[in-house]
Amino acid sequence: MSGDYRSAGIVRPQRASFAEALPLRCGATLPAFELVYETYGTLNADRSNAILVCHALNASHHVAGVYADQPDNEGWWDNMVGPGKPVDTDRFFVVGVNNLGSCFGSTGPSSINPATSRPWGSDFPIITVEDWVDGQARLADHLGIDCFAAIMGGSLGGMQALCWAIRYPDRVRDALVIAAAPNLSAQNIAFNEVARSAILTDPEFHGGHFYAKGVKPVRGLRVARMIGHITYISDAQMEEKFGRQLREGIKYSFEPEFQIESYLRYQAEKFAEYYDANTYLRITKALDYFDPALATGGDLTRALAPAKCRFLVISFTTDWRFSPARAREIVKALVDNQRDASYAEIVAPHGHDAFLLDAPQYHAVVRIYLARAAERAGG
Amino acid sequence: MSGDYRSAGIVRPQRASFAEALPLRCGATLPAFELVYETYGTLNADRSNAILVCHALNASHHVAGVYADQPDNEGWWDNMVGPGKPVDTDRFFVVGVNNLGSCFGSTGPSSINPATSRPWGSDFPIITVEDWVDGQARLADHLGIDCFAAIMGGSLGGMQALCWAIRYPDRVRDALVIAAAPNLSAQNIAFNEVARSAILTDPEFHGGHFYAKGVKPVRGLRVARMIGHITYISDAQMEEKFGRQLREGIKYSFEPEFQIESYLRYQAEKFAEYYDANTYLRITKALDYFDPALATGGDLTRALAPAKCRFLVISFTTDWRFSPARAREIVKALVDNQRDASYAEIVAPHGHDAFLLDAPQYHAVVRIYLARAAERAGG
Repeated sequence: MSGDYRSAGIVRPQRASFAEALPLRCGATLPAFELVYETYGTLNADRSNAILVCHALNASHHVAGVYADQPDNEGWWDNMVGPGKPVDTDRFFVVGVNNLGSCFGSTGPSSINPATSRPWGSDFPIITVEDWVDGQARLADHLGIDCFAAIMGGSLGGMQALCWAIRYPDRVRDALVIAAAPNLSAQNIAFNEVARSAILTDPEFHGGHFYAKGVKPVRGLRVARMIGHITYISDAQMEEKFGRQLREGIKYSFEPEFQIESYLRYQAEKFAEYYDANTYLRITKALDYFDPALATGGDLTRALAPAKCRFLVISFTTDWRFSPARAREIVKALVDNQRDASYAEIVAPHGHDAFLLDAPQYHAVVRIYLARAAERAGG
Repeated sequence: MSGDYRSAGIVRPQRASFAEALPLRCGATLPAFELVYETYGTLNADRSNAILVCHALNASHHVAGVYADQPDNEGWWDNMVGPGKPVDTDRFFVVGVNNLGSCFGSTGPSSINPATSRPWGSDFPIITVEDWVDGQARLADHLGIDCFAAIMGGSLGGMQALCWAIRYPDRVRDALVIAAAPNLSAQNIAFNEVARSAILTDPEFHGGHFYAKGVKPVRGLRVARMIGHITYISDAQMEEKFGRQLREGIKYSFEPEFQIESYLRYQAEKFAEYYDANTYLRITKALDYFDPALATGGDLTRALAPAKCRFLVISFTTDWRFSPARAREIVKALVDNQRDASYAEIVAPHGHDAFLLDAPQYHAVVRIYLARAAERAGG
């Protein structure tokens, strides 16, 4: 190990095809589907050192390293995953997978619907966290991984880790649930609904069948992204970074005048260029629906009872999207079930996005937790 | 006085025309303009008992009472203003005025531009809080009021009261600044910018000249209203009122499924029916620009030095739009100036909207404060 500056290096995405249809929560069945994934590190002989990294709203299978032809396109969790990093690929075999319904390569609304030979569009079913996890389990079968050393993720990715622990208790030894919540609050749902309304009412959405028209509902996507973006950053962080700074003085116009306005618009424009509106709609719905305690009448303790693995739950003090109080609900339910649960509340100014950043305490907690997990497994 | 249940009764809006042009902060000049207003109570002989009520984003001159032909259309602050109420119209002569640029009767973007004989639309100038206050001062002249007993408002209305105290220090004896801030934070501006983006990019906005097309950018207005609405309510209040309640079970569709979704959509649809998009754009800009300390290099104490009146500043514990910390900035600057400032931080669960509700402590504070003000004035 030579320190944190090493990278997973050149990586390349792989593709797994699944011929067997996947039954979905919504009642529909997805016919043959594909998942795009990447791996970092080496699977050991007894296939016991695999870590699955689940992604959140706008990320993908590209977790670490770079592509040979895109040396600047670092994976979204490159500071966390790599040789000598907290998720140490000298020790673990790490799998990044793109979820069903995404627009980054796995089967999704912009894929071709075999029934029509045209893009699925709005005919693509609504996917849930449980469906994602079921799809990921197929990938685990494909890779010959019976039981993951750990499954981890931040935000929506943390919800997937939690779902795995409940749904496949024998297939995961450690779950790392970071910047997540046991379900969305009314306010969380409200923000998602505004974002969806912006997309659904964009005239270029065309009921979800915009691909054939050669247009994209970029206006709606931009507004959706701006709303999301505000909720990812803490109020204090936004104040420190932008405050009331002006670009070039007050112009009395509707062009961006404050730095925060042009920052939001710029980020939104970039996002709308590469992201798919039907994917955005579905991922926010998956967030809204996630609620393991729905089946147990709201009792999270009973909902988590099937889980057998150890847990590391992490929250960030300034995260107002999924606040520490929400993470503590998960911890309480685990403790009530007498599960082996560690909890770290990281003091970080960045808000929800802190899970993507490299606050030293945060990375140290993950590093130590996984090192101990490896020792326990004799790795 | 017979208690809180009495109302200002049947009221009717009045209209004042001003022939003299109004110079605006943006550099433009508004030619002859009109202001719509209502009054409640009786102006005393020495014209010393007048209270001006300034409105916030989507309210108007209709502060209290009802119209003869609309017995259900109560004024927006009817619980606060009326005979025997905290702002007691048995004692005070209360003036509600609709601001310039509004869509409720005063000259605004939907009024006829005398230069073109068509609606102003996007040619209507961008108005600031200072411009509103200057317009209100003209109305005071028209009513023969040299000095208001008090000027009061919540949210953006509180900013107008603060602006009056600085801009016309000899024309106001008491300023009641409720649920306000000395300026908008980066996060506040960000939410406004998303709302404006939704309107500006609605294809039916037509660059602000939609009136002639017989359409309205209702999609954009709805999204804007939904965003605003979320910020008016506290997270906890939304959770208590809606939580994750479903309307009719999970349908796996993009129709509203959670109660919070249908509530937001319903409110947004109502709003988009009656509100004007050009007004929305301008009022959010007036909010963004408001910053008395801009002229003093960010020094709020120096900015408030010209104010001579007494102050009552009120904030609400769960207001995350304009938090108590922001109100305390105003109080600190007043204290630093050795002004007579009272401050009440009201424990209320409702968030920003608490200023419109009748939390007993809140109303008691206003009632006692104004009663003492009247005693001091020998009223």
